[in-house]
Amino acid sequence: MTETRSKTHHFDAQVYYEDTDHSGVVYHANYLKFFERAREEIIGVDTLAAMWHDRQVGFAVYKLSMNYNDGAVFGDRLDIRTTWEKESDYRVIFFHEAWRPAGTRAAVSCRLELVCLGPDKKLLPIPDLAFLS
Amino acid sequence: MTETRSKTHHFDAQVYYEDTDHSGVVYHANYLKFFERAREEIIGVDTLAAMWHDRQVGFAVYKLSMNYNDGAVFGDRLDIRTTWEKESDYRVIFFHEAWRPAGTRAAVSCRLELVCLGPDKKLLPIPDLAFLS
Amino acid sequence: MTETRSKTHHFDAQVYYEDTDHSGVVYHANYLKFFERAREEIIGVDTLAAMWHDRQVGFAVYKLSMNYNDGAVFGDRLDIRTTWEKESDYRVIFFHEAWRPAGTRAAVSCRLELVCLGPDKKLLPIPDLAFLS
Amino acid sequence: MTETRSKTHHFDAQVYYEDTDHSGVVYHANYLKFFERAREEIIGVDTLAAMWHDRQVGFAVYKLSMNYNDGAVFGDRLDIRTTWEKESDYRVIFFHEAWRPAGTRAAVSCRLELVCLGPDKKLLPIPDLAFLS
Repeated sequence: MTETRSKTHHFDAQVYYEDTDHSGVVYHANYLKFFERAREEIIGVDTLAAMWHDRQVGFAVYKLSMNYNDGAVFGDRLDIRTTWEKESDYRVIFFHEAWRPAGTRAAVSCRLELVCLGPDKKLLPIPDLAFLS
Repeated sequence: MTETRSKTHHFDAQVYYEDTDHSGVVYHANYLKFFERAREEIIGVDTLAAMWHDRQVGFAVYKLSMNYNDGAVFGDRLDIRTTWEKESDYRVIFFHEAWRPAGTRAAVSCRLELVCLGPDKKLLPIPDLAFLS
Repeated sequence: MTETRSKTHHFDAQVYYEDTDHSGVVYHANYLKFFERAREEIIGVDTLAAMWHDRQVGFAVYKLSMNYNDGAVFGDRLDIRTTWEKESDYRVIFFHEAWRPAGTRAAVSCRLELVCLGPDKKLLPIPDLAFLS
Repeated sequence: MTETRSKTHHFDAQVYYEDTDHSGVVYHANYLKFFERAREEIIGVDTLAAMWHDRQVGFAVYKLSMNYNDGAVFGDRLDIRTTWEKESDYRVIFFHEAWRPAGTRAAVSCRLELVCLGPDKKLLPIPDLAFLS
């Protein structure tokens, strides 16, 4: 792992009924679901499942900030663009963006810090996983 | 516990943005959340938490059916009306209804069977809890 | 459209953190989200979006029943198997199943009736769409 | 409306099954639901519903940041503490905190900027509502 940012990872998130609210756009909290799905694909769902089942170790969100520039609507197929970097032994930073079809800038962007917790919520060093190499 | 049905329990569920979808009404799956909140209040949240933390025992939905007659909208304060009965040593049946303000019949109704599961998903007899007495 | 049941449609649903609850399995209401995603792919998201935006016409769930035989866990990649048939001019029936990896029967199964509603929630005949031909 | 911060508003949020994930704590995105419920009670659900139905005007989240210090668990009754201030003609800032029972600091805190949007997502001045007086 170098100090440099990862390449951009792309993840498709189709906007279904469940994602929208009565105002006609995606409910603001639901972008965090799209972003987490992308992170789970990046880290590896099997890797995460094995960490959890074998050692009760998992990642947890420690801090995040989001900006909303446009609202995605039902039927949009969003391009979730993610880069990340290991900031320290105990912190990985993810930069997520949700792009609408034909968008000229990100509809929603997010910076999110992840930590690693063991049993009893004990802070652990970030494990040496493939997505960080 | 007799064979007779319980009295009707009332639980208020305010319809917030999170509950609706872009068609303007409550998303169909979300009535199950309202109904489960009512069940948890009936059984007792502290009771459920203690069962789970002490013995890894919990209730699980085994079967359900629902009818949708009307769609609740943002701003509705729903009256969730619930009755229940113990059907056998291993089964409790809940009958839920969601009533809109000024409704003349239930907007949504649900019949739902609950079982009790222990560690490793082993079927257990329904415990002798206060809501069944 | 004949009276016969459709062929089986397959849709993958990855179980993410958002789908599970503290008991370790998928929250019971969330299977309805997986099943709706499958229906939207079957009917066509673009078709649904156009119906809604052009004429405020959409499908609504009228009735459903579900059986839970096993609980899917974080990391499962579910195979959502769906068949459907037009029951009458005003009703389409969907039969959904969620299969866990290596499952020998459906973890969850669902029978669901869909109707078509226009502005002011007026019941409309099921439109003559490609998925019914 | 003065420049000063509002008094603290309290809102109870019971943690139900639906709010948790398989790691045993509240899913990180769901605190935004608790916070929005509190905002809707502060602004007034009826006020929001009338604005929307009469004039297609609503509030939208423009920006937010969150810090997670502790994870709430099933059975917790959270005290959602909120203060707010009108920052400019076009912006209201909310400061939310989720307190666990017997907590000595906020489990989760959030700063969130709200704007007001009319039809076609046009930015409007913040209306002169009771919660700002």
